[in-house]
Amino acid sequence: MPHHLSSLGEKLTARSGILELMDDLGNALQAGPSVRMLGGGNPARIPAVEAEWRRRMDALLKDGDRFERMLAHYDTSQGQKAFIRALVQTLRETFGWEITERNIAITNGSQNAFFYLFALLAGRDSGGRDRQILLPLVPEYIGYADQALAPQAFLGMPPAIDYIGNHHFKYCVQLDALPQDTSLAALCLSRPTNPSGNVVTDPEIRALASFAGDQGVPLIVDSAYGAPFPNILFVETTPYWDRNVILSLSLSKLGLPGTRTGILIADEPWIEAIVSMNAVVSLANGNLGQTLVRPMLEDGTLLRMSREVIQPFYLEKSRQAQAWIQEFFPDDLPYRVHLSEGALFLWMWFPGLPIPSAELYRRLKQRDVLVISGHYFFYGLPEPDAHSRECIRITYSQSDEMVREGLRIIAEEVMRAFGG
Amino acid sequence: MPHHLSSLGEKLTARSGILELMDDLGNALQAGPSVRMLGGGNPARIPAVEAEWRRRMDALLKDGDRFERMLAHYDTSQGQKAFIRALVQTLRETFGWEITERNIAITNGSQNAFFYLFALLAGRDSGGRDRQILLPLVPEYIGYADQALAPQAFLGMPPAIDYIGNHHFKYCVQLDALPQDTSLAALCLSRPTNPSGNVVTDPEIRALASFAGDQGVPLIVDSAYGAPFPNILFVETTPYWDRNVILSLSLSKLGLPGTRTGILIADEPWIEAIVSMNAVVSLANGNLGQTLVRPMLEDGTLLRMSREVIQPFYLEKSRQAQAWIQEFFPDDLPYRVHLSEGALFLWMWFPGLPIPSAELYRRLKQRDVLVISGHYFFYGLPEPDAHSRECIRITYSQSDEMVREGLRIIAEEVMRAFGG
Repeated sequence: MPHHLSSLGEKLTARSGILELMDDLGNALQAGPSVRMLGGGNPARIPAVEAEWRRRMDALLKDGDRFERMLAHYDTSQGQKAFIRALVQTLRETFGWEITERNIAITNGSQNAFFYLFALLAGRDSGGRDRQILLPLVPEYIGYADQALAPQAFLGMPPAIDYIGNHHFKYCVQLDALPQDTSLAALCLSRPTNPSGNVVTDPEIRALASFAGDQGVPLIVDSAYGAPFPNILFVETTPYWDRNVILSLSLSKLGLPGTRTGILIADEPWIEAIVSMNAVVSLANGNLGQTLVRPMLEDGTLLRMSREVIQPFYLEKSRQAQAWIQEFFPDDLPYRVHLSEGALFLWMWFPGLPIPSAELYRRLKQRDVLVISGHYFFYGLPEPDAHSRECIRITYSQSDEMVREGLRIIAEEVMRAFGG
Repeated sequence: MPHHLSSLGEKLTARSGILELMDDLGNALQAGPSVRMLGGGNPARIPAVEAEWRRRMDALLKDGDRFERMLAHYDTSQGQKAFIRALVQTLRETFGWEITERNIAITNGSQNAFFYLFALLAGRDSGGRDRQILLPLVPEYIGYADQALAPQAFLGMPPAIDYIGNHHFKYCVQLDALPQDTSLAALCLSRPTNPSGNVVTDPEIRALASFAGDQGVPLIVDSAYGAPFPNILFVETTPYWDRNVILSLSLSKLGLPGTRTGILIADEPWIEAIVSMNAVVSLANGNLGQTLVRPMLEDGTLLRMSREVIQPFYLEKSRQAQAWIQEFFPDDLPYRVHLSEGALFLWMWFPGLPIPSAELYRRLKQRDVLVISGHYFFYGLPEPDAHSRECIRITYSQSDEMVREGLRIIAEEVMRAFGG
């Protein structure tokens, strides 16, 4: 490293899992179709959805100087007033949430929003107490792991495991093991869960909300893949929000990751804090995502498209990928797939895998198949167990050919690892 | 504030100057033309420049699925390879700098880049030493003031003042007062200077670069308004870069603030550090700015437009605004304008002003004229002197009518403050 870095600088530039992932993603894009990119969370390119973006851009260019104004003006640090108004309207009508324009802030992507939230909450408070973010269900999103500026910022809880048949499983929150600890800063979970594709159930989310309320700390829910958009959910659940919930949405998984648009919905003091941080850290947000999507909120296209195009598209992709797994993995191989309840991933567990998942990742990479080693998603735990070295995350959102061929090679390498 | 915040959270959400500015900017946009917004750094809307953005967007839409790919793909954490390649080529050809693609990283705006740099550098290092950012010429950009996470992160140096005639002045770096201090983290300055429109001279920048080299710390130069684009420079100077300089550029003042595109040019280890932080804090950058501008780097339009359209436009605006100042401010009123050497601002100093500039700001705001009180730009100083309460920053980039009327009202209020 160059010269003298601050301790914080050293922490933030340590080689992180998310950096390895972003490197893989960038290099795979460069390499072209010879690499099977089953590692990143890049959404699929869905023709009907892309046609909609193009239509909206054409309309924008024809609407006086609206295109020029989009480029020429700094957004406010809260976000575009008209976009926020349209979103409030949509959420009130769809879910009956009692929110106003003062309950929403925009950020440069939801990764950015979580950086803000963890900086705000975790670490030493003014009373000298070190506060932690409780992750009630680990494995949890790789991108949080290195975001907190405070040391030991996360307190993770391993899940209970429901074994389902020979080749499936589902994680459950160990509600009876929630810590009676007064030094929590917040609870945080992704729903659907990245990486496992689990969806924390309605009773679980209500119990967590109630626990957070009792502790006097917020419950942060990352709905980047969930309701109301992009709605990549394959089980019936109810979106949950109350004044103690900080809900995070994103335009990325709709197909707009290049616009970097994140959305937080929370009680007013939280929104004010986020707006302050936006001003200091970034001045303002990018305008493109908000500008394209606002009319689609106003005329109902966005929710309809999520329900009628995006959700069925991914459901079919997930079923297809699972069928290939059944085809390529021999029945007597020790493998289990987490129930695919949402998000873009299949989470595979190989009980008793003789090599660590990081080694499986390397072997697959040599064969031009990129996945993510599961161990990155286990953090904040006292001592990681064997399970944390036996899983991989596989993205099924890319082309059928790529996913099929990737799964075939994964099956071969897992068999080889087991000495088959 | 809600619940328990971390100490860091409390710092980052304290009411900041930059937040007041962004609030003013947002509210002025909402209010429409009745408010004379001479406060923000919003670039002017220049028809020939806007026509170019529209042409490039039309071309993008017609070029196969390049528009769709822009939206659909996460950028790498370093930035778009093709954009970086084009920029390297441009800088090598124009200035002869020996840089490669490994010397450039993109961020979500240059505000964001400075947040990264200060987090990397300022504060306690692993040896337990508290390191500061030296600002060799204060007043300096308001947006840095609240960005550092470490306490007392900035060490500011007041300038020497050259009095020029009755109504002008220029700041100079007190080179002989540079601290022989071994706990510096970096030197940092904007060139042209925001807020004063000063341009640190070639001998000054060379002396600062040499001093930084001797101290073993980098020299950070913020060229958001400078060379090679947007080139809002009215004096002959030489852009400066060496391996010890971290140079920051931006697409904002070209007219693209809505795209949030910042650029850092530095030695490789710095770029690697910034790329790591990008992955952790934001995953990736917005794609729009890079996508629109890349072909304009490749065919030379960007530099030509900066030289032939943008620079002359602002030079004329600056001259016009100075003529109005001469018209509205009586010759016997104590006022001085900093030499307008670059950037979008006129920096006015009212020696002996009987009210603090913050009060002048409030009185002007009541008359629908928004400026920035100068006191926000004086920080990192042991004890601010009278000069720091006697200045305001006035943006001259808005419409002639708005600027003229604003200056007329400013003259009235200053006369009133002096009891005239």
